[in-house]
This record gives sequence, structure tokens and C-alpha cells, in this order.
Amino acid sequence: MPLAPPESENGTIQDNSGCQNTIGYVIDLNPADGGAGCWLDLGAPHMNRNGLMHGGIMAILLDVACGYAASLSFDVKTLAPVLTVSLNMHYVASVADGRVLAIGQVTGGGRKICYATGELRDTKGRLIASAAGVFKRINQRPAS
Amino acid sequence: MPLAPPESENGTIQDNSGCQNTIGYVIDLNPADGGAGCWLDLGAPHMNRNGLMHGGIMAILLDVACGYAASLSFDVKTLAPVLTVSLNMHYVASVADGRVLAIGQVTGGGRKICYATGELRDTKGRLIASAAGVFKRINQRPAS
Amino acid sequence: MPLAPPESENGTIQDNSGCQNTIGYVIDLNPADGGAGCWLDLGAPHMNRNGLMHGGIMAILLDVACGYAASLSFDVKTLAPVLTVSLNMHYVASVADGRVLAIGQVTGGGRKICYATGELRDTKGRLIASAAGVFKRINQRPAS
Amino acid sequence: MPLAPPESENGTIQDNSGCQNTIGYVIDLNPADGGAGCWLDLGAPHMNRNGLMHGGIMAILLDVACGYAASLSFDVKTLAPVLTVSLNMHYVASVADGRVLAIGQVTGGGRKICYATGELRDTKGRLIASAAGVFKRINQRPAS
Repeated sequence: MPLAPPESENGTIQDNSGCQNTIGYVIDLNPADGGAGCWLDLGAPHMNRNGLMHGGIMAILLDVACGYAASLSFDVKTLAPVLTVSLNMHYVASVADGRVLAIGQVTGGGRKICYATGELRDTKGRLIASAAGVFKRINQRPAS
Repeated sequence: MPLAPPESENGTIQDNSGCQNTIGYVIDLNPADGGAGCWLDLGAPHMNRNGLMHGGIMAILLDVACGYAASLSFDVKTLAPVLTVSLNMHYVASVADGRVLAIGQVTGGGRKICYATGELRDTKGRLIASAAGVFKRINQRPAS
Repeated sequence: MPLAPPESENGTIQDNSGCQNTIGYVIDLNPADGGAGCWLDLGAPHMNRNGLMHGGIMAILLDVACGYAASLSFDVKTLAPVLTVSLNMHYVASVADGRVLAIGQVTGGGRKICYATGELRDTKGRLIASAAGVFKRINQRPAS
Repeated sequence: MPLAPPESENGTIQDNSGCQNTIGYVIDLNPADGGAGCWLDLGAPHMNRNGLMHGGIMAILLDVACGYAASLSFDVKTLAPVLTVSLNMHYVASVADGRVLAIGQVTGGGRKICYATGELRDTKGRLIASAAGVFKRINQRPAS
């Protein structure tokens, strides 16, 4: 399994992990405002028991967007592998359909540790959830 | 869509939402130590690009376990619907296969707000991730 | 003890609580970019055992800035009293002297719950710490 | 300024930093249930504008308790200096007087990173606030 993902010509990543295939999100390494993006077209597989987008799926999208932003900040060429140390989620509004887009941005850090924040919005720009995460650069796949 | 989930005779819940079907976790409303549980048998659909369980999937399991613990604390009979206000995740260790079990416990709260913490462990009892969440009781499905 | 603080002519608040007197911060209800501000001139009383600004003091400044931003968003005239439900802190850089300024901004919420984020910077604009908080409007001083 | 604090015969630490002198808390390196403790006798200097213990002061006590628990876990003899990477606070109940005690416990980590959780309780054992923090071992006082 490659540590650096297969990057398509337009800077998006698909089919890069089992989780990505399961949920169906698309990674965008070149969003308009910098950082990294992750979008998803909502459907029944993403809903909770109340018929709304599951908060855990929101966490996946924001973890991915913030994690790739961290990865790019460490090494834009090789997409340095990172581990999520912590992730804090705020669930601001609910959403039931349409496309949602997470954007992650790096706010600081050093050689090994990276701080990032992210926002998940619907197509109208409404804030659905926000996240703040700490990521750690790793040299290789850690032992399980 | 029923707000109260279909509960089987042995206190476990399956097929209760699109998200649950997508990920494949099972909810346990009567874990040995109280609170609420959520377990998952890991497979390729739950892995990240490094071949380890995706942190976002961990967030789903802990959100579900803590959320059902909150729901039970508000009303054990009807499983009062709740929204996640915030969820903080700590990723303590990685895991690549086997069964993982999340247990959520309520630590406090009032009429509308509930505080819960949760732990995700593998079958050897090793701590994989921990969570702290705030949940809000809602009367009905909120407008999207 | 008044629930609404004594506001000076220029929109700053001092001597409003025992904690404020102990730490010595000044609240600014009209910062340039909106929200609410809280600044402090650092000295020996704010240092940890390593001679750097204590992370807990950073938490106080960001809790105050985000809390007043929430309070203003509920009712700008009476400064509606609020309780902090949760606060997540990221410690991005260290600082040992000079003035630090926390700015809190509201990102969403409803009738009772308010989400806010905040940033603490030094006089050069360097990010020292960031915060994400959930606040709850209360009608009066809660029973202890 | 010594990186290792002056430890008294009974395992408590006082007068170890400007912040500690300002707030007046006492550090206990040998609490009954393990980890590290930090207690404070509440007075007017610790109150917010509603006459209740300020959430930021709670953050200080829990940051100290969790940080010393992390420090002890790295090196019990030299009390290895650590930095707080992130701290998540849950404010479960309010308190206005008496003694409050924070206990921090380590839940996991590696060579450099340590995860800890903490609880703040009053003398009746009531949970006032809980915390989850990430700490990083440092070799020396970082450059400011």
C-alpha cells in the first residue's frame, strides 16, 4: 500500500483507502483558499437515525481535510504520512442532503507536530461543523 | 423513520440507520459496566491510507456509544433523540484488525445537556482512543 | 454583584470580577474585527515553572474573549450572562513577555447554545493559542 | 529558574511559579489513587462575574494536575518538563466556595507524547469539571 496516494491530474484523490471507498468522499489537494479539501455528495449511507448527516461522517471529512493540510505542510511532494493525535469537533448545524465540503488549514506547528483547523459547509456556504486537530508526522506505517 | 430504534430482544441494535449499515457496527444498550456500547469487526472498509483503522471511524463508534449513553440517561424507555454538540477525540494507539469496542458513560448534565466520556478498546483491552462529548436532548427531528 | 458588568466609556471592562483583578486582564467589547477581546500585559504572576506564560492563563483569556463574544451575540445591551459548557485549547507557540490579545468570534448557535472560536496573539501578530468553546445562555446566577 | 520544582518532604509543591503564587493552588505528587493532584481553597480572587469559580481557573488546576501526571510518567525523579499541546475542558457543574481538588491520570502515550485525563471535584466528591490533555516532553526551556 503506497504511503503517497495516487494523485490525479487535477489534484483530486479517489480510491485511496478502504475508508474512502466506503464513504465515497473526494480529496482536493488544491482548494481555492489553500489548505486541503474533502467533499462528499450526501446520501442514505451517511445518515443517522434521525435522517440527518451523521456527526461521525462529518468527523471523517474534517479529519481527512485537516490531515491532508498537515501532510502538505510537512512535504507537498511526497504527502508525508501523518497520524491524528487529537480532533475536536463542534456540530453547529444539521444537513440532510446535497454536497458538503470540508476545508482544512494549518495554523502552526514544528518539525513533528502540526495544528490545523477545519470547516465543513454546505453548498450555500452555511457552516455545518468545525474542527481543530493536532497531527504528528510519522516516518512510516506505525506498528499496529 | 422512527426516532426510537428497533431494539432486539438481547438489547442490541442493528440496521438502524444508513450510517450504521455502511460501517457495520452493532449497538449494545446493556454493556457489562453500564452506559452504552458500540462494537465493530474491522475490515478493509475501515482502513486509512496507512492500512490502519481510520480515526474518523473511531469517532463514529465513540459518538454512537456516548450518544446512546446520553439518550439512555434522558429516557431509558424511549431512547430520547439527542444531537451531538461537541466531541473531542484522543487517538492513543493504532489498530489494524480484530474487534474494537466503544463504551460510553454519562458523567453529568441537566434537563437538556448531557456530558459523556467514552473509551475504544481492542479485544486485549488496550486503549485505542478516548472521547469526551456534549449532547443535547431534542424533542423531534430538527429541521435540516 | 451585577450580572451586567460596569462598562467604561471606551468599551473596556476592568475590575469586574475577582478573577479579573487577580490576573489583571482588560476586556474590550469593541475590537476592530468584531467579536470580543481580552488583553493582558505579561509579568511574573502569569508564568509557569519554565518561565513561560502558563497555559491556564491563556485559557482564561480565551474563555473570557469567547464568552463575551457569546454574551454580546445573545444580547448586546445587557451582556446576557453565559456559562462555558466546553472549551478546547490548542497551544501553538510559547510567549514570555509583552502584551497578548485574545479575540473571540461567534461561529453559530441558537436560542440557548452559542459556538465561538478564539485566537491569542502577541503584539507581532504571532499565533500563541487558539480555542473553540460552547457557551450556554443562563437567565440568572445559577445555584452553586 | 529550576526546571525541577522544589519538592517538600510530604510530596507537595508550593511557590514553584509566578502563576502558582498568583492563584494559590498546591500540587500533590502522591495522591491516593495515583497520578498527580492539585488543590485550591476557593476565595474571591477565583470568582467570575457571576460569583462562581471561573472556568479558566478550573483549566489551570486541571492543566497542572494532568501536566504533572505526564511529567511523572516520563521521569518520576527529575519531573521531566512538559508542554501542553492541547487541553479540552468540560464544565459539568458550578462551585462557589470550599476546597476543590483536581486529579490527573495518564492514559497512554509514547516517548515524547503523553495523553492524560483529569477530574475536578469538590469536597463532597461532586464532579465540577473534567479535562483531556495532550502533553509533549521537552528537553529544556523552549525559546520564547
